[in-house]
Amino acid sequence: MDERISWFPIAERSTLSSETQAMFAQLEAKLGFVPNVFLAFSWREERFKRWLAHFDELMKPSPGLGKAEREMISVAVSMQNHCLYCLAAHGFAVRALLKDPVKGDRVTIDYHRAGLSPRQVAMLDYAVKLTREPAACSEADVEALRGHGFCDEDIWDIAEVAAMFNFTNRLASAAGMMPNPQYHGMAR
Amino acid sequence: MDERISWFPIAERSTLSSETQAMFAQLEAKLGFVPNVFLAFSWREERFKRWLAHFDELMKPSPGLGKAEREMISVAVSMQNHCLYCLAAHGFAVRALLKDPVKGDRVTIDYHRAGLSPRQVAMLDYAVKLTREPAACSEADVEALRGHGFCDEDIWDIAEVAAMFNFTNRLASAAGMMPNPQYHGMAR
Amino acid sequence: MDERISWFPIAERSTLSSETQAMFAQLEAKLGFVPNVFLAFSWREERFKRWLAHFDELMKPSPGLGKAEREMISVAVSMQNHCLYCLAAHGFAVRALLKDPVKGDRVTIDYHRAGLSPRQVAMLDYAVKLTREPAACSEADVEALRGHGFCDEDIWDIAEVAAMFNFTNRLASAAGMMPNPQYHGMAR
Amino acid sequence: MDERISWFPIAERSTLSSETQAMFAQLEAKLGFVPNVFLAFSWREERFKRWLAHFDELMKPSPGLGKAEREMISVAVSMQNHCLYCLAAHGFAVRALLKDPVKGDRVTIDYHRAGLSPRQVAMLDYAVKLTREPAACSEADVEALRGHGFCDEDIWDIAEVAAMFNFTNRLASAAGMMPNPQYHGMAR
Amino acid sequence: MDERISWFPIAERSTLSSETQAMFAQLEAKLGFVPNVFLAFSWREERFKRWLAHFDELMKPSPGLGKAEREMISVAVSMQNHCLYCLAAHGFAVRALLKDPVKGDRVTIDYHRAGLSPRQVAMLDYAVKLTREPAACSEADVEALRGHGFCDEDIWDIAEVAAMFNFTNRLASAAGMMPNPQYHGMAR
Amino acid sequence: MDERISWFPIAERSTLSSETQAMFAQLEAKLGFVPNVFLAFSWREERFKRWLAHFDELMKPSPGLGKAEREMISVAVSMQNHCLYCLAAHGFAVRALLKDPVKGDRVTIDYHRAGLSPRQVAMLDYAVKLTREPAACSEADVEALRGHGFCDEDIWDIAEVAAMFNFTNRLASAAGMMPNPQYHGMAR
Repeated sequence: MDERISWFPIAERSTLSSETQAMFAQLEAKLGFVPNVFLAFSWREERFKRWLAHFDELMKPSPGLGKAEREMISVAVSMQNHCLYCLAAHGFAVRALLKDPVKGDRVTIDYHRAGLSPRQVAMLDYAVKLTREPAACSEADVEALRGHGFCDEDIWDIAEVAAMFNFTNRLASAAGMMPNPQYHGMAR
Repeated sequence: MDERISWFPIAERSTLSSETQAMFAQLEAKLGFVPNVFLAFSWREERFKRWLAHFDELMKPSPGLGKAEREMISVAVSMQNHCLYCLAAHGFAVRALLKDPVKGDRVTIDYHRAGLSPRQVAMLDYAVKLTREPAACSEADVEALRGHGFCDEDIWDIAEVAAMFNFTNRLASAAGMMPNPQYHGMAR
Repeated sequence: MDERISWFPIAERSTLSSETQAMFAQLEAKLGFVPNVFLAFSWREERFKRWLAHFDELMKPSPGLGKAEREMISVAVSMQNHCLYCLAAHGFAVRALLKDPVKGDRVTIDYHRAGLSPRQVAMLDYAVKLTREPAACSEADVEALRGHGFCDEDIWDIAEVAAMFNFTNRLASAAGMMPNPQYHGMAR
Repeated sequence: MDERISWFPIAERSTLSSETQAMFAQLEAKLGFVPNVFLAFSWREERFKRWLAHFDELMKPSPGLGKAEREMISVAVSMQNHCLYCLAAHGFAVRALLKDPVKGDRVTIDYHRAGLSPRQVAMLDYAVKLTREPAACSEADVEALRGHGFCDEDIWDIAEVAAMFNFTNRLASAAGMMPNPQYHGMAR
Repeated sequence: MDERISWFPIAERSTLSSETQAMFAQLEAKLGFVPNVFLAFSWREERFKRWLAHFDELMKPSPGLGKAEREMISVAVSMQNHCLYCLAAHGFAVRALLKDPVKGDRVTIDYHRAGLSPRQVAMLDYAVKLTREPAACSEADVEALRGHGFCDEDIWDIAEVAAMFNFTNRLASAAGMMPNPQYHGMAR
Repeated sequence: MDERISWFPIAERSTLSSETQAMFAQLEAKLGFVPNVFLAFSWREERFKRWLAHFDELMKPSPGLGKAEREMISVAVSMQNHCLYCLAAHGFAVRALLKDPVKGDRVTIDYHRAGLSPRQVAMLDYAVKLTREPAACSEADVEALRGHGFCDEDIWDIAEVAAMFNFTNRLASAAGMMPNPQYHGMAR
């Protein structure tokens, strides 16, 4: 693929640490490609590795907040920030994890009209509020989520995932990161 | 200090890893207190450590982007997001690093009226644009910063620091984190 | 398909005029289904027919403004208004008309990052400006489009198509219209 | 009248269809002038006729939603979009239909402070919500209007009239349409 | 007139100072009525008198900024703040001072489409900028107005009049002040 | 102090009225300096005196609304308008009047997270609403403040103080007024 994927330099793969090169090889084996965010971020390899260590830990599912729900938060936040990269890459993840491409696409475009449960809508409304007007968030919002059956760890995770995509959306937008073209067609 | 510093549980210090306990002790020796963000985040210790590893690496100065400038970005972003915790804690950092409490306070309140250089204002205008309308950022913004003498690494760092405070502002606001009262009076 | 497609009554097809019934039959033959907007709007049949007569005339291609470009305007406007129905249905149209599902999806999500020509971007920027702050549009905007090679008829059409989707987005959102599920997967 | 009424060409009346010419003559006989929107739109005569056929059908009164109420929606929407043409022309209509120039002017400027009934205010609040944030409209809004005694047909009409003025406001603003000067002084 | 003109108490005229009573009598003689803002504000008479002393001094014409221009600023600001009272009362003043009811009404509704001079539009654009995003105003704005032939005193006055109507709009809106019905029909 | 404090001319003190000169001397004796707003405004001395007469009367405490509360309103409004001058000068006043520099600083940055009483938060929420969307204020807002124990005079004063800082914020921002550097460090 010859498309330009960033407005910043791209590291030669051979210059990266063997650890990173091995991870890229694994991803190619599994997905068929290395996600462009990895290719675009790895020129600042030390920071890339530390960010990814945090990100991967954060996206691990818990009993109260599964993988699909964490990905739903990512697309709800990314739609607020109009992040092409994240909407394409995580839109795929939502479709795949829900095993329902129509519902997944609807969650990505407008989660209020996607047939989600009230608990899921409350989770996403909170992620959007935290994205749009963080200082307006209050302890009452935390209480309201408890009322939907989320425990303290879940609620913190909703907030931290939403906050994380406010980071990644901005880094992707600042760098002009282009999503791998494959994402657009996968899990359709 | 008995003030409630978070709407979420606070870890007993004795339950934290020895590594984290040692870091807290060092901070108390140096600053006189542990920053409340550390106390409030450490109940999710594994994630806290990974986030901090990324954050610390990101805030290291480089020839093109010093400590003071990284902290200026933090307060410019935090003012957009109205984050009490970050404005108090990083407002202190800006005052201390500039060794000019008046200028530091003005950068925190309104960097356009603080006597900064055009290069610094351009840096902060970009951080604010990335905060407010990330999808509107374009390669022309990157070019404009190059025109102010920033190299590619510097520009990426401006973006990544701005993105990082869009993360921390939201986590602090979501958790109701209160700044240590000392910050308000330090370096005045 | 048993999904509820509107918050308003749906006309029994047998109660509609033979003209409308024939049109629905034609669409089923061609597309495999009747677009839900037709099913949802036809309970006010007289108005539906008049609106459709206007809409169909407006979407006809001209040498200066092809079908694909008219559909690009529709998705650019619909993204501003977050209209699930129109993004699904006209997102399909853009993908199909461009014969490029990746580019079509990117135009739908963020036309600034989709590899369009400066002429096309100028067209869409104008449609978005007219959507977001119509009173700020000026004769200078018309002149600027002339500078991109659009003739007066083209420019009027850009405005009228943008205005039209400001109508349809609102009617679809007000009625809770759900897109036919097929749209999400077509031309991928 | 020599004022320039559009940034686009104006059709010579003699070149228009006899049907359109006859309509213009009727309007001159009734109002004393042809509304400038007709003069400005008729250079795209086929589309003008189709739009007008839809518009006229839509503005017909029903038992639940009278002429004055449809015009109130038009000015409430037009004030959101700051449309000079529509505020002048339909502001006149509201004054005339209410037979109360003071109340009509107040509805045009700020319907919340015009002494309207709660039912009318609810109708206009919904039209404004649909104008400003269409995707936020929900079935609960429809229910709330039912609670004010509107039937399904009325509610659809409120939405469709609001949507229609989101079309006309934009076309008028894009074309630089100037209201006939007479409108400003009529029914005062 | 029995209309309720404020959500706060109205002073009995006989309880006001003889100075204020005399002023009200003069206004009735001249205009036919006492402006409701005076009736609504005079229950806090000492403050009312001091505010009016400032206001009257501010609205005095100068060679570079006439009465009509000061009133144009008042309606441009009041339209931003959607202030019914000020739009009715000062809309009348603009119509009367311009001796052109059509132009005056257009300035009130949308000064960009009212046939004003570039100097007048620049003046009003600045007043609107100061209203909407005061901290974005810079010395470059002052320079730009100098380029339109305004002297320093004129520019200060534009700013101070704009600031003043940001005061009066808010006091009128907070108090629910209703304009005297006469205003709507005067100078039409 | 040689800092430039305004983009407009500064009156020579010897040219001001003896009354104004005496007031400046008194302020220097009391505070150690003349507030820059006085130095920057006095070149239009007649208007300055009238504005100050109104301002001083307005800021006088009453049993229901003390000095500290009036100053809290000033900083809450000034934060909305991002007014450097007023945040520095009145931020000092809040810290001094509360005799609590930490709480005062928190009220200035984010009064929702400053430990204020529900009555004080309601007061400030109203001042902010009146600042951001004055036309949305209604009699229900007045009633709600009555429910917090404010009398009519108090509520009017909250509105008038909020309105006043919408004046002063704009005049300060338009003139590029710089706060006296002393303010930043006082009452810390």
